[in-house]
Amino acid sequence: MAKAPVLTPQADDFPRWYQDVLAKAELADNGPVRGTMVIRPYGYGLWERMVAEVDARIKDAGAENAYFPLFIPESYLTREAQHVEGFSPELAVVTHAGGKELDEPVVVRPTSETVIGEFMAKWVNSHRDLPLLLNQWANVVRWELRTRIFLRTSEFLWQEGHTAHATEADASAYAVQILSDVYRDFMVNVLAMPVLIGRKTRQERFAGATNTLACEAMMGDGKALQMGTSHELGQNFAKVFDIKYQSAEGVEETCWTTSWGVSTRMMGGLIMCHGDDKGLVVPPRLASNQVVVLVIKDEDGVGAAASALVDEIRSAGIRVKLDDRTDTSFGRRATAWELKGVPVRVEVGPRDLVNGEVTVVRRDTGEKRQVGIAGLAAHLPELLSHLQADMLAAATLRRDEHTVTVATIDEAREAAQTGFARIPWATLGEEGEALLARDAITVRCIQTADGDVPATEDEPGAIAVVARAY
Amino acid sequence: MAKAPVLTPQADDFPRWYQDVLAKAELADNGPVRGTMVIRPYGYGLWERMVAEVDARIKDAGAENAYFPLFIPESYLTREAQHVEGFSPELAVVTHAGGKELDEPVVVRPTSETVIGEFMAKWVNSHRDLPLLLNQWANVVRWELRTRIFLRTSEFLWQEGHTAHATEADASAYAVQILSDVYRDFMVNVLAMPVLIGRKTRQERFAGATNTLACEAMMGDGKALQMGTSHELGQNFAKVFDIKYQSAEGVEETCWTTSWGVSTRMMGGLIMCHGDDKGLVVPPRLASNQVVVLVIKDEDGVGAAASALVDEIRSAGIRVKLDDRTDTSFGRRATAWELKGVPVRVEVGPRDLVNGEVTVVRRDTGEKRQVGIAGLAAHLPELLSHLQADMLAAATLRRDEHTVTVATIDEAREAAQTGFARIPWATLGEEGEALLARDAITVRCIQTADGDVPATEDEPGAIAVVARAY
Repeated sequence: MAKAPVLTPQADDFPRWYQDVLAKAELADNGPVRGTMVIRPYGYGLWERMVAEVDARIKDAGAENAYFPLFIPESYLTREAQHVEGFSPELAVVTHAGGKELDEPVVVRPTSETVIGEFMAKWVNSHRDLPLLLNQWANVVRWELRTRIFLRTSEFLWQEGHTAHATEADASAYAVQILSDVYRDFMVNVLAMPVLIGRKTRQERFAGATNTLACEAMMGDGKALQMGTSHELGQNFAKVFDIKYQSAEGVEETCWTTSWGVSTRMMGGLIMCHGDDKGLVVPPRLASNQVVVLVIKDEDGVGAAASALVDEIRSAGIRVKLDDRTDTSFGRRATAWELKGVPVRVEVGPRDLVNGEVTVVRRDTGEKRQVGIAGLAAHLPELLSHLQADMLAAATLRRDEHTVTVATIDEAREAAQTGFARIPWATLGEEGEALLARDAITVRCIQTADGDVPATEDEPGAIAVVARAY
Repeated sequence: MAKAPVLTPQADDFPRWYQDVLAKAELADNGPVRGTMVIRPYGYGLWERMVAEVDARIKDAGAENAYFPLFIPESYLTREAQHVEGFSPELAVVTHAGGKELDEPVVVRPTSETVIGEFMAKWVNSHRDLPLLLNQWANVVRWELRTRIFLRTSEFLWQEGHTAHATEADASAYAVQILSDVYRDFMVNVLAMPVLIGRKTRQERFAGATNTLACEAMMGDGKALQMGTSHELGQNFAKVFDIKYQSAEGVEETCWTTSWGVSTRMMGGLIMCHGDDKGLVVPPRLASNQVVVLVIKDEDGVGAAASALVDEIRSAGIRVKLDDRTDTSFGRRATAWELKGVPVRVEVGPRDLVNGEVTVVRRDTGEKRQVGIAGLAAHLPELLSHLQADMLAAATLRRDEHTVTVATIDEAREAAQTGFARIPWATLGEEGEALLARDAITVRCIQTADGDVPATEDEPGAIAVVARAY
């Protein structure tokens, strides 16, 4: 008799598979207040790795971290008309504090353009103060009707970058730089996710932006997930918050600002892009544990040998964990590490040891090989590097197999049932966009023919990528 | 005519000096909502270094990071009687969200014992699940009447550790381990602050704890600052949240829990422990910039030489910054780096360069020396290491000079006007504690005669350290 699967198979019910992975891989739980989440240690370890990698790239792009308050006066939100319209329905409001009703209610930040705008205005005086490149790692709250852990939660963790520039061209170039050198680079090279980059349509823009750029990924069920956005805010916020500078010529000018963010939503993307019926699959460059060494039975010096091996592997610069909990069955532990998606398992048992070998198992392909202990630590970096490349190649292949270039709106609708459709933006247009929206199909982004960010929405030859989305 | 000082001198008005440093060293600003703060990039860079150092020690102590929600159902708070009594007056309450009034108001976490207790109860089943060692880095909100940036703010950043253990002895040992191996080790060896450790009196305990341990530091004005606390919670939270386990013998037992935290308050401690009339002084092991290389004038190849020097210094593993903003006067820039407390300045000018030398200035002592360029990068690690040790020695000396051992309550009151008084706890007692409280003098901690944590409050020979405090 076949064993009952640990997880609901993806093909049976993808959303339920997702919930199963969250629970069984010990990634996250629902919090007690509607729509909030608890990120468990294994899930948080992956998030910490995301933070470290994104943060390093943000610093390379010249931005500095700072921290702005959680509470924003309600009046700040209302200053930029589109911004307040976009966020009002989602705000959580503190009306009482310190045992009293507050004179002015304060909102829990849904994003920090307004409060950061207020301080940028104080800090920017001269053209010498520009560009001002700020970032913060923080929690934000958006009261959502339908929530799903990591994908859409009332509270989530993110970074939000906020910059002020002397010219529109400089602001625009920086928004693209963040999209491409920070976000895409991280997603492609660390998460092994072949994201598309492009512009959002007017309909899909951030509330208050003049242009929104995005990274879009394909999930295992062919639906799209927006993984990160970078916005040009024009002078919308600079005007209402008075972010001005004196030019080299002594003239008072208004700044151009940007904002950009990625969030714990990327955790959802990671799970749904690479996961399979055995659980999560974590790319090595992200993994908090790249290799786990399992003691099959602690007999004939296996425990000591495994422990020595772990030290050796760690010395090779690999994030490795020892699992010597032999009071739990080997099969159960192996399944648990599969669920958690650790890229490589090294299994050490008494018989292997006699032969001077261990069993090395790749999580992505399931491939098992006997490898001599002597050369293992030297072999692993190369194996991890192959595994990383293979995961990106597999995800790219799957994305391409589920992407169809079409010429009509009907064909786009059809193709979007199973993946992405590419259709000339000139053919689709805002009217076509509205038509597809009836079937919950949206324009994920507008790209140039060769997959780059178009300079304008109406750039000749621009392609709209449409899909169902999370 | 003497130049007007950049800062209010400490001797004139210590609190105003503190506010001046916050502003002039660009550390932090007041936020728009009462009692909140904006941590500016330079201040946040120091906080990031604190986080990295504390986080590494927490992980070495075996705890794992996780994340729990900002919002806690109001009903959770009320379950532990002392806890709710302690925190009710400080709560911020969300009554409206998503455009509607909530059925049950939610509180913004003032601390997370309750919500984490709820999840510990889910995750702990067997004695094999213990100890459960969790930590989170988060923002918390406590509505305070009188606020001062970093020292007491309505929102602050911190880490809060929460652990569950099988036995009281294990919980107690872990609370001491965190206090000593994580907090004291970090404060003494990185912050160069000679903190005292000890037990709090019943009066000063955390709301819901059976025992509170603390690290206490002396500030530049002789007042005390509580820098971190570690609490034994007994079975108080375990009972109301049902944190139970099955023992090896199959018996259901109630866990023993602890919690412990340090916060952005440490930033205030850093400023007030080491700062002087020229500004902040940052110990090298903490500093985000350990060395700044200043180009005096960019003539005769000085810029290129300074830039090469920075590369060489960075290669020696030192966090170094180049200041070549020669459009601002050298004097103004040197003053700014003094204000920011960068441990070592390296000044490079055309005349020095001719002699193959640079000027090296220590921030702590102000000492200037000519050093040959050739040996500089090799010399700096040693200099920084001396500077670190000298800062700790200076702070220890000042603390000891302002600490008096006394035999009576009157003497204690007198001594607490300028520093710490050490008085036998048997002499002081709770009645003496109440007497001193009238003059805003509190027992900072109870120690053994040799400065260790006493096993019980009534340990014979225990000494109470009393002081005015922030």
